[in-house]
Amino acid sequence: MSTAPTIVELDQALARLKPYIVATPLVPWPGPELPGLLAKGTDVRIKLELFQVTGSFKARGALNVTMSLDDQTRARGLTAISAGNHAIAVAHAARTFGTTAKVVMPKTANAFRVGQCKRYGAEVVLAENVAEAFRLVEEIAAKEGRTFVHPFEGPRTSEATATIGLEMLRAAPDADAIIVPVGGGGLISGIAAAAKQLKPSIRVYGVEPEGARGMSDSLAVGAPVKGVKVQTVADSLGAPLHLPHSFGLVQRFVDEIVTVSDDAMIDCVGLIFRDLKLAVEPAPAAGVAALIGPLRDQLKGARVLLIGCGANIDAVSFAGMLGRARAPVAADQ
Amino acid sequence: MSTAPTIVELDQALARLKPYIVATPLVPWPGPELPGLLAKGTDVRIKLELFQVTGSFKARGALNVTMSLDDQTRARGLTAISAGNHAIAVAHAARTFGTTAKVVMPKTANAFRVGQCKRYGAEVVLAENVAEAFRLVEEIAAKEGRTFVHPFEGPRTSEATATIGLEMLRAAPDADAIIVPVGGGGLISGIAAAAKQLKPSIRVYGVEPEGARGMSDSLAVGAPVKGVKVQTVADSLGAPLHLPHSFGLVQRFVDEIVTVSDDAMIDCVGLIFRDLKLAVEPAPAAGVAALIGPLRDQLKGARVLLIGCGANIDAVSFAGMLGRARAPVAADQ
Repeated sequence: MSTAPTIVELDQALARLKPYIVATPLVPWPGPELPGLLAKGTDVRIKLELFQVTGSFKARGALNVTMSLDDQTRARGLTAISAGNHAIAVAHAARTFGTTAKVVMPKTANAFRVGQCKRYGAEVVLAENVAEAFRLVEEIAAKEGRTFVHPFEGPRTSEATATIGLEMLRAAPDADAIIVPVGGGGLISGIAAAAKQLKPSIRVYGVEPEGARGMSDSLAVGAPVKGVKVQTVADSLGAPLHLPHSFGLVQRFVDEIVTVSDDAMIDCVGLIFRDLKLAVEPAPAAGVAALIGPLRDQLKGARVLLIGCGANIDAVSFAGMLGRARAPVAADQ
Repeated sequence: MSTAPTIVELDQALARLKPYIVATPLVPWPGPELPGLLAKGTDVRIKLELFQVTGSFKARGALNVTMSLDDQTRARGLTAISAGNHAIAVAHAARTFGTTAKVVMPKTANAFRVGQCKRYGAEVVLAENVAEAFRLVEEIAAKEGRTFVHPFEGPRTSEATATIGLEMLRAAPDADAIIVPVGGGGLISGIAAAAKQLKPSIRVYGVEPEGARGMSDSLAVGAPVKGVKVQTVADSLGAPLHLPHSFGLVQRFVDEIVTVSDDAMIDCVGLIFRDLKLAVEPAPAAGVAALIGPLRDQLKGARVLLIGCGANIDAVSFAGMLGRARAPVAADQ
């Protein structure tokens, strides 16, 4: 079983991070469409973590890991492998703490995301494919002594995402449930650990794409699985493997993981656009899809918190998704 | 000179409104692109008033007016004329206080906005043109005894928008300047009255489209002008006339009104999409355009507050604007 950070430790982590992050707002769901799709009396608030520095929650983990390094190690720089949010977060963390980052991104990475890494001063190495990317990042770490910052695994990473849970529960102590999109599991591991320790009665749900259900499978077999088959429009929820620390926290603190289809996520991207005016990735839409889909009835009348975890999407991809979105339909309709 | 509401009166107004509105968040500008276009040291935060109930600041005014009516008057219902945000706000206010609304909208009004009015239970009357719309709303008010809720004029309306100024200054007491988009002038009249009384040293700037510069003209001649020539992509900033109460507050409390081109606003719609992931109307983009354009140098090093005032835009119109947007260029570059 993974050792969970205590609330005292999480408060210390939040205090360390505070000068570098935004205490992102939790707002009541403002639009008119979602309420019509919910079971009677369900109340929804959403934490706008996409207004975090660098545009996603990944900044918290990268900053927390970088702060934890001793001066000498930190001075040798950081490295990471990522097609998006995590690469940007590591580039930003390096600049914030006066060191350098060399991030490996797939050749196919979105030009806007590559540009954001460079804006934060990172050197970007483009790899032909995933295998080459992993080879390159290992080589960089070994030769240059750079610290490899993992995208979702490790105590410092879960501790950082746990600060999101602290902020959520303190802004909404009356909450009955939290729904968190699951990729590798870094986000939900921390949020669940914080929320359940602060308020054991709260229900924490994860949501995975049907085409990337590695955490569901891991829970079913009781161990983090590798070689996950990933085929989903939600690229940031498609982790090829799971790992012990985050898995252990999920196993201990998460009530249930549900899955949603790509179509349901795309439809909810459209709903979020209409209700919140936000152009988001499919990842945060997964939470909404779960709320009006598999979790609708059991959350009847509950005070539910969602998380807008990231929105690094370019205009063309977004327009393509909007073009595919239909009117979402609630589970029992 | 218009009588300004005192801070004590504004605090009372905010306390009255509080159960019905969202204290919308003020967030540091999160994206990487805008900072590169600002003069050195300029700091930007934006109030996300588009997460207000009904999707725009208009909710505050409609609620405040409706609350101020005696029971008998309120029971006879509300009426309004609007193509968008204000109609939705009046529909919502009527439902909130247990009365009815009959709103007149132009036949050309966006179907999504018409749908939002109906969702809040309003009866929508579609008019062939603006002349017919005004005839209809007068007839409705006269025959049915409904209270006409003005889109921008009146003490209760400015008092309501002033609560936004209170929230902004209390969340950011260190602010040096506020930039507010100007349509009829309801929004800026209240924000300026609150901000200048709370902190006389703060600078309050208005921004109008070049193709709808009625408030600039009103200030130049020293009286609210009518028959404003309106030709701008920013439909919610195109007021055909100005009126004494809001004009008087603007004359007294606003430091300067600048203008920006349609192209500059459209380019900043693109920038806001990339930096904030928000799909906004041109109105909030006008503030950004002013900040990197005519106000850039005089706001060097200042702590500036912007307002994301509304985002009632449909996907097709938004995609069309994104298609026209180029990379914004700062004033001195």
